[in-house]
Amino acid sequence: MITKTWKMIFTLSLRLLALTATLAATLVMVTAHDSAEVLNFTFKAKYSYESAFKYFVVAEAIASGYSLIVLFLSSKNSFSRLVMILDMVVAMLLISSVSAAMAVAQVGKKGNSHAGWLPICGEVAKFCNQATGALISGLLAAIIYLLILIYSLHTDYWS
Amino acid sequence: MITKTWKMIFTLSLRLLALTATLAATLVMVTAHDSAEVLNFTFKAKYSYESAFKYFVVAEAIASGYSLIVLFLSSKNSFSRLVMILDMVVAMLLISSVSAAMAVAQVGKKGNSHAGWLPICGEVAKFCNQATGALISGLLAAIIYLLILIYSLHTDYWS
Repeated sequence: MITKTWKMIFTLSLRLLALTATLAATLVMVTAHDSAEVLNFTFKAKYSYESAFKYFVVAEAIASGYSLIVLFLSSKNSFSRLVMILDMVVAMLLISSVSAAMAVAQVGKKGNSHAGWLPICGEVAKFCNQATGALISGLLAAIIYLLILIYSLHTDYWS
Repeated sequence: MITKTWKMIFTLSLRLLALTATLAATLVMVTAHDSAEVLNFTFKAKYSYESAFKYFVVAEAIASGYSLIVLFLSSKNSFSRLVMILDMVVAMLLISSVSAAMAVAQVGKKGNSHAGWLPICGEVAKFCNQATGALISGLLAAIIYLLILIYSLHTDYWS
């Protein structure tokens, strides 16, 4: 009985952390914007200007919605298999969107001289810093979902 | 007994498919190169010029090495839990690397006018086509690993 309560508290804490991290990632990325004038060219930076960042915001928003709903579902045992499959789907969605956004963020930071793409983070530093924060938060959320998955595999099937 | 043989044949076929797909993705991406002269600027395109593509090649190579080794391991039941954890790790590695490479490939194809990044696929079409092939192969490999995971969860734990 004590082990079961302990398990529930542990899983619930992880799920609350995941909710916080995905919500933070969504809000920080959506509110990030900056602009700069370089010669005659105006740099503007917003998440909606780049499809990888749009994908990131949609994925984090879906994950935070799911994290909220599952707080109420997870206490019922009849849903445990469905919740595990959905946890796996959400973990993969988070990994995929964080990887895509990080790859483009890397181009934004370092540029790619072979393709003639200049780095833009020197000009729109405020946007880059905020996007970096959102990416770190998204990465944390993905790691938390992996922990939830491994923990539920461990307790439900391997014990 | 028949079900067990059938299960082994099915898993083995999926693992062989995964080996083929990851090997094809690695080789097609590594051999892709093209160059073009535009005004005074020489475009050269190779996977090693972009970190997301390097990550893709390394991940696909690791996954094909693992897919080969696991063909011999998977027949022994004592390894089944380890193999399942490794399958999950490889599936996530594949999803992450395919997402990162696709995000950068998207920039290469469409460019990003807000950041001043021009599309390059018009100039180095041969590279772009071959990279697209590698990405599709990598995506297939990721899907096959998801099928392997779901199938082994289904047969080993939920039956």
